[in-house]
Amino acid sequence: MMQVPLSIGSMMEHAEKFFPKKEVISQTHDKLHRLNYAEIGQRTRRLMSILDELGIRNGDRVGTLAWNHHRHLEIYFAAPGMGAILHTINIRLSPEDIIYIINHAEDKILFIDEDILPLIEHIHTHLTTVEAFVVMTDKTELPESTIQPLYSYEELLSTGDPTYEFANDIDENQPAGMCYTSATTGKPKGVVYSHRAIVLHSFALGLKDTAAISESDVSMPVVPQFHVNAWGTPFACTWFGSTQVMPGPRFTPKRLAEFIERFKVTITAGVPTIWLGLLKELQQGDYDTSSLRAVLCGGSAAPLGLIKAFEEKLNIPFYHAYGATETTPLATISRLKSYQQGLSTEEKYEERTRQGILVPGLQMKVVDEKGEVEWNGKDMGELLLRGPWIASEYYKDERTKDAFIDGWFHTGDVVTVDAEGTIKIVDRTKDLIKSGGEWISSVEIENAIMANEAVFEASVVAIPDEKWQERPIACVVLHEGFENKVTKDDIIEFLKPQFAKFWLPDDVLFFEEIPKSSVGKFLKRELREQVKARYSTQG
Amino acid sequence: MMQVPLSIGSMMEHAEKFFPKKEVISQTHDKLHRLNYAEIGQRTRRLMSILDELGIRNGDRVGTLAWNHHRHLEIYFAAPGMGAILHTINIRLSPEDIIYIINHAEDKILFIDEDILPLIEHIHTHLTTVEAFVVMTDKTELPESTIQPLYSYEELLSTGDPTYEFANDIDENQPAGMCYTSATTGKPKGVVYSHRAIVLHSFALGLKDTAAISESDVSMPVVPQFHVNAWGTPFACTWFGSTQVMPGPRFTPKRLAEFIERFKVTITAGVPTIWLGLLKELQQGDYDTSSLRAVLCGGSAAPLGLIKAFEEKLNIPFYHAYGATETTPLATISRLKSYQQGLSTEEKYEERTRQGILVPGLQMKVVDEKGEVEWNGKDMGELLLRGPWIASEYYKDERTKDAFIDGWFHTGDVVTVDAEGTIKIVDRTKDLIKSGGEWISSVEIENAIMANEAVFEASVVAIPDEKWQERPIACVVLHEGFENKVTKDDIIEFLKPQFAKFWLPDDVLFFEEIPKSSVGKFLKRELREQVKARYSTQG
Repeated sequence: MMQVPLSIGSMMEHAEKFFPKKEVISQTHDKLHRLNYAEIGQRTRRLMSILDELGIRNGDRVGTLAWNHHRHLEIYFAAPGMGAILHTINIRLSPEDIIYIINHAEDKILFIDEDILPLIEHIHTHLTTVEAFVVMTDKTELPESTIQPLYSYEELLSTGDPTYEFANDIDENQPAGMCYTSATTGKPKGVVYSHRAIVLHSFALGLKDTAAISESDVSMPVVPQFHVNAWGTPFACTWFGSTQVMPGPRFTPKRLAEFIERFKVTITAGVPTIWLGLLKELQQGDYDTSSLRAVLCGGSAAPLGLIKAFEEKLNIPFYHAYGATETTPLATISRLKSYQQGLSTEEKYEERTRQGILVPGLQMKVVDEKGEVEWNGKDMGELLLRGPWIASEYYKDERTKDAFIDGWFHTGDVVTVDAEGTIKIVDRTKDLIKSGGEWISSVEIENAIMANEAVFEASVVAIPDEKWQERPIACVVLHEGFENKVTKDDIIEFLKPQFAKFWLPDDVLFFEEIPKSSVGKFLKRELREQVKARYSTQG
Repeated sequence: MMQVPLSIGSMMEHAEKFFPKKEVISQTHDKLHRLNYAEIGQRTRRLMSILDELGIRNGDRVGTLAWNHHRHLEIYFAAPGMGAILHTINIRLSPEDIIYIINHAEDKILFIDEDILPLIEHIHTHLTTVEAFVVMTDKTELPESTIQPLYSYEELLSTGDPTYEFANDIDENQPAGMCYTSATTGKPKGVVYSHRAIVLHSFALGLKDTAAISESDVSMPVVPQFHVNAWGTPFACTWFGSTQVMPGPRFTPKRLAEFIERFKVTITAGVPTIWLGLLKELQQGDYDTSSLRAVLCGGSAAPLGLIKAFEEKLNIPFYHAYGATETTPLATISRLKSYQQGLSTEEKYEERTRQGILVPGLQMKVVDEKGEVEWNGKDMGELLLRGPWIASEYYKDERTKDAFIDGWFHTGDVVTVDAEGTIKIVDRTKDLIKSGGEWISSVEIENAIMANEAVFEASVVAIPDEKWQERPIACVVLHEGFENKVTKDDIIEFLKPQFAKFWLPDDVLFFEEIPKSSVGKFLKRELREQVKARYSTQG
């Protein structure tokens, strides 16, 4: 067989040739853009020629600080397309972390959205490797800035070469992209994606039994492009010729709802927090969401109530997926098997709260201290993953040795697996609660509490206990209108029929908000501090 | 990212773990077998241990002479799964060609269906490399035979090790399979498939916009397993957990129709000749074919009448695909793009007679003597293909240099491409007819003739002409009941409104049968001889 490398450039070439009329609809600060793949392809080529002129060479890092829009998409293909590395930077991190990441990755050029420029204005003197800054704006004049040299994206593109060729000497194992993930302790950790990983992952996203991304889709990634490449959807959607709708900077649930109706979005992807917000908006407003064939939910476990609300109240199919920055990210997805269609509605929902089966192309193991656990739906163990789109290390980081052991990525997620191979995340290894020598899953209690109609969000953390070692405490945010009407006892009574007695939280604390990470996950470390603070105030 | 090779063994492991209950339903000579993937996986492991015991090592060729059934499927995974090479042999070839192929491939062991054993009985003394013969039968006693050593498949398996592991040191570029394709002149030519090619091709078969093979499918490959791995469907279907229905030896259209109804087949694949036969059966009988979501048709161009009959009379979606032994084989597939749904019925059919757009992962060029032709739907050129599941050579064969040039496979197929990137096969380079300096497409005339309700099949060949260089002659097989009722003039009159005058055949000859190759393609070389013979008899 021919030795033809899997390359990101060839995905854009495919879109240019076979889907030239299909569109990317992109909201920027000032306006809505509509460009087809013939145009996006040409602009990508212009951008490659500009990167070349600005001295970007094979393996150089090209940083982005940007929302979801077409220019960001162009950089997705231009940087790896000419042999450089796309480095998407999480704009929600602290300035200190952003400085660390840019210097650690040794970014040579930064592409910055105009509303993020003030942040860079503050920190740019700390950046040790960046040689050029490009601001992405619809305005013809550059904003005033002390940053030097500062270019305008569109001005650069206007002088670019629309016939510039994608590099034809790509080694499929060479780095194509990188992304840093927050760590429980210490600075963010970098993951490097190869061309091979991204192409294979895109294949996986197009499979009928996973996301089934296709030409007929209108895809709106809500998950940020700076977070694991918006779960890889911009790559797959471009390759397969989907229409893409980019919701742009600082979108609101209202804008998402409007875009779904206006552009007949068929598939969208994001974390539970986003869907909780969208759900509210869709229930308050009068939107036509009949085009939606799939809402993909990942990042953290979706509570049953959220799944039910989407499916029953809104008639929108809702799919649980699982992955991590280290897994490009798609690793499992929940779809009923054909012979499970006969299950009762409740049994089906029970299945749907699980994270599903492994995506073809990967391997998994679930282990506890004694070795592989039985696939009986009960025994808990840490999920280990292996495969061509699973990271093998953290970029220049000593913490590699803690997570990548004997060829397996240790996810830190505790799961059960049933006889169908379906996994269910029961906790993070570090968030499991050990009470009287037994494990308690904080996530299972959280999900149970969130099934209560009064509850908007719930998070369960451990506090130290002299007798039992650790005990669970539930932290609950109530829906509007339920404040002061629901008590600790109401919650405990609600949980009693569902759990062994020792699983029931010792206390229920009510909060206005649960602290979350920049990607919408519960920040349990911070929550534990807040819980401690409450008790010490009370004490 | 991890360096994990793409391997065929891991596809079976995936089925064992995630689809253990899903079934392979297999018709053999004596009975219908139903085995699930847990069982098929164990039997595959037993077989690997037996191959190991019989001295088969990494890179050794394992030949099969067999129909479509579960034992053949087990060899599909066992041979490459333990590092050997699956060599499927076309049982419809001449004994001379079969001897050539087995000796040329240097097969070390042969797996033979019991009804094919007499053929091998005749030729086995000419086989220079085969050290062991295994007969696949449901009977407990081996048939009488002079072949030595001759083993029984089931007896061997009963002593095999069901826990034998798939080889973990596979290089994804190492050979996994091979298949010989008939040549216009000379002996068949061998194509070697790598693990990488077969895994990537399987991904391609699972894409929503190609064959969309999924867990919910019941797949019945009619294309033989000895022909380009039944178009790769057994690999993809196993990986994705589809139910597989193997129609077994010497199936009839009646058996196919019965199996479709009985096992609720959702997808099937084969050549136009098969579908012409099935169409007849379905129209005569009373079958429930409502489960069928896709009939994939390849090998040669399907006439419009066939597509219409399936879609309009039987309400069965019919998809044109294109490929070759050298392309693993899927290269293009015809599906309407979302924005083509608004076309008129006739325009849609016009699109559906085309072979569609390129499958993601491949590259194509269409060239004539002046270079790349315009994608305008008119200019003809030879289709060139490139990609990770396109062959780079014929196995130990000097004819490599004629077809594999500068990194591109020259398909020998003449196509047009429209602005959508949709190709239409207009002829084989060698079957194009050159008349008065202009090209005439024999395939277009054939398809037009086959749209006549009286016509069962038609093939158009060139005869030498003093004035015009070449002129087309139509060879026609009429449907039952139309014999002697349709004349040359009827056919010519029927064609007149559709073609330029110089395209009209000089003569129409009626035949009882068009000679076909072992895979159901028109044998134009032989047909030309028959036409010549008719004229010389007349003369």
